[in-house]
Amino acid sequence: MTPRDQHAEGPGGTADSAAPPKRSDAERNRGRIIAAARAIFRRDGLNASMASVAREAEVGIATLFRHFPTKEELVVAVFTCRMEAYAQATEEALADPDPWNGFTGYIREVCAMQAADRGFADILTMSFPGAQALEERRAQAYQGFLELIRRAKDSGQLREDFTSRDLVLLLMANTGVLSATGDAAPDAWRRLVAWMIQSFQAPARGPLPDPPEDAALFEAMRRASHCVTSPETAKRR
Amino acid sequence: MTPRDQHAEGPGGTADSAAPPKRSDAERNRGRIIAAARAIFRRDGLNASMASVAREAEVGIATLFRHFPTKEELVVAVFTCRMEAYAQATEEALADPDPWNGFTGYIREVCAMQAADRGFADILTMSFPGAQALEERRAQAYQGFLELIRRAKDSGQLREDFTSRDLVLLLMANTGVLSATGDAAPDAWRRLVAWMIQSFQAPARGPLPDPPEDAALFEAMRRASHCVTSPETAKRR
Repeated sequence: MTPRDQHAEGPGGTADSAAPPKRSDAERNRGRIIAAARAIFRRDGLNASMASVAREAEVGIATLFRHFPTKEELVVAVFTCRMEAYAQATEEALADPDPWNGFTGYIREVCAMQAADRGFADILTMSFPGAQALEERRAQAYQGFLELIRRAKDSGQLREDFTSRDLVLLLMANTGVLSATGDAAPDAWRRLVAWMIQSFQAPARGPLPDPPEDAALFEAMRRASHCVTSPETAKRR
Repeated sequence: MTPRDQHAEGPGGTADSAAPPKRSDAERNRGRIIAAARAIFRRDGLNASMASVAREAEVGIATLFRHFPTKEELVVAVFTCRMEAYAQATEEALADPDPWNGFTGYIREVCAMQAADRGFADILTMSFPGAQALEERRAQAYQGFLELIRRAKDSGQLREDFTSRDLVLLLMANTGVLSATGDAAPDAWRRLVAWMIQSFQAPARGPLPDPPEDAALFEAMRRASHCVTSPETAKRR
């Protein structure tokens, strides 16, 4: 709970004047907003507007902004738990006794998470430097993934030139397939992921162009998050 | 030239009333609109609005709609020539004496076309059943690509389970990387394409999930084109 929850209006819109609102109204509105945002972001991705979330939650736009003054705060409230699950997936993969199974199972799992939720798919290829809890979980997942890579290379099953940035590339590519195919071909992404995993397998079939630098990829992820952090800029483009 | 070009107003906006406009005004406006649309679509993809094209062309929105009553007509006017080049690329690839070089060179070339023009990248994964000239060139490119596939399989260098739909998947995936990385990591797509091409190479490293059906992929491409054929629907989502 944050201080601004105390100021939320009742559903009838009569609360702001005399008696302080019942706390349960604020809680109920907050819960409805988060549930609505989860559904809308899952279906439409993070480009979905705050207005569409308010409509789905059946609250006024003023109530929505009172609970979440920025879209970024709403996005963080909705997805921090998903990011926790994302971090836990590396732990489970590391528990697999076969390093290649652990590595490939993790990649399939993350791509499946993308397929199940367009909002989370966006989150995975964006960066929110201001959202500490969310970024800490992403960093934790990253450390776990580095360990998965190391194990799979040590066992000789993963190409030496694979880097963690290749997972970011795959996530970006998967987002492209998911948003282009949608309901019309909902399993198409599985084939993309299978092609990529077979290519990751050692031995290398040939040299590859260098991956993008970490800094460049981070900059791309930061810019992509502008549809959340600067909605007006995103709309004008 | 179409009949409606005869009715275009002069740039001063005085022409609609008395004297018929000079034909050169209409031609000049049409040329400016196409050049502006080409630049805007290249940078922003086909989601760019008609209003932004009119602004860039420095013509009124009424003039734009007089030349191109629908966004689809404008898109087709801008991209039919690019689709011609796309079809010719298969001819050139078929002239390569090495079937694998021809096949892989073509894939790299098409992905490079996507990277150079976000609008054309969209076109490649959309379908416009109403735009006959454009779709005929796409069909011609498709026939050429089938021949490239056949040659590369006959020479034993391409996996037997590769299908033309895998190129569509790659184009969708590449669009995802291009739109996520943009200027921040402008060469990242080359690495994605290299991973995929190495995986296409025979012998197969393992089985793959089935590719999407032709009909499903076509339906996905047709739906994707709605941002052009039904702009209002696209905006509401």
